[in-house]
Amino acid sequence: MAESMACKKVLSWIKDRGIPSVDLYTDCSNFRALLVGDSLRFLTTLLLTFKSDENIHSSMEEANAVQDRDHKFLRRAVEEAYKAVECGHGGPFGAVVVCNDEVVVSCHNMVFNNTDPTAHAEVTAIREACKKLNRVNLSDCEIYASCEPCPMCFSAIQFSQMKRLVYGAKAEAAIAIGFGSDRIIADALRGTTFYQKANLEIKRADGNEAIIAEQVFENTKDKFPIHSK
Amino acid sequence: MAESMACKKVLSWIKDRGIPSVDLYTDCSNFRALLVGDSLRFLTTLLLTFKSDENIHSSMEEANAVQDRDHKFLRRAVEEAYKAVECGHGGPFGAVVVCNDEVVVSCHNMVFNNTDPTAHAEVTAIREACKKLNRVNLSDCEIYASCEPCPMCFSAIQFSQMKRLVYGAKAEAAIAIGFGSDRIIADALRGTTFYQKANLEIKRADGNEAIIAEQVFENTKDKFPIHSK
Repeated sequence: MAESMACKKVLSWIKDRGIPSVDLYTDCSNFRALLVGDSLRFLTTLLLTFKSDENIHSSMEEANAVQDRDHKFLRRAVEEAYKAVECGHGGPFGAVVVCNDEVVVSCHNMVFNNTDPTAHAEVTAIREACKKLNRVNLSDCEIYASCEPCPMCFSAIQFSQMKRLVYGAKAEAAIAIGFGSDRIIADALRGTTFYQKANLEIKRADGNEAIIAEQVFENTKDKFPIHSK
Repeated sequence: MAESMACKKVLSWIKDRGIPSVDLYTDCSNFRALLVGDSLRFLTTLLLTFKSDENIHSSMEEANAVQDRDHKFLRRAVEEAYKAVECGHGGPFGAVVVCNDEVVVSCHNMVFNNTDPTAHAEVTAIREACKKLNRVNLSDCEIYASCEPCPMCFSAIQFSQMKRLVYGAKAEAAIAIGFGSDRIIADALRGTTFYQKANLEIKRADGNEAIIAEQVFENTKDKFPIHSK
């Protein structure tokens, strides 16, 4: 309801000012994608902050560019998640490290392949990225994970000093097909200072991207005998 | 005061029954080592549980054997912590994986050597042990860590399904010389269900062993330029 009101207000505001991109924003699916979660807050902030139509226009284009960019890298991480299962390397999890808009490494869970319970997608991606860039500090990098990181991976992301984390599926989607169960508690860190005080931007995908990322588990559970029920 | 009373009671109880090991327990340093923390609770439980002198005697010997064994492996982990700094491989942290009373691997922090921010002592030890034993499940193993594991290592220990964790120094001792600071919060997991529901026995060293493990940080801080102040 609140979203619908905001949606109407934004639409009429854009229309009143005859901003050229109005067609883009009235496109139903794109518009909805823009008006959920953080994007809604971002748009609201924009509307309150900027006074000139020109600024609004360019800022909205910028927001769209960030969204498109995030979707691109997140989809790459999701592709990796499928690859992990197809190759029999490990569970359906993928992660991509990005530096200056370029993919540094694109990795997936390698637990079985490496006989290493710590070779989760994110940990593997961090290791590989550090090796490739020849440094332990990734403070100029972002990590895209197909699923919300477990506490081990979340800590590894912090140790690498990554500046930004974008993830697709919520941990519960993985737990639903048998990952973690009672051993690894999905919300262990949520609500604790450890998570809240993390010195990085954390963005959870919304809309279609979140759905695509969560579908990985349903689509792979039969190919992954250890965790299927 | 409570300990002193318990101490006197136990001593007189042992003397009254003429248990052969009485000399061992009246030895001041050993006796104190037995009467702190978990050991005191263990001894009290023994006194309440067993009725025959023979049972008490053998159970006490068993408790001593466990203590000696733990000290032996913990000291090995502490030696590794010193080695990490001496070799310039990484921070002063060591970890030993034990299976059936035998050391499987004895490792230390390799962050600098491997250019890998995830190569903490425990994670390294788990990886190496899995490689050596050719399996990802270490449920028949124990891990001895020179210092309380960080959240990444603690999660890795859980993923490997380790049955027991024994650690020396408290995390605060590492933080005091600059490890972690505000990025990695030592007590992040303490008091949360993640830590409390961990499906493994967790033992913190007490007495002399804890002191020896905590001294690592004071003794190495000058040789470890990144973290010395």
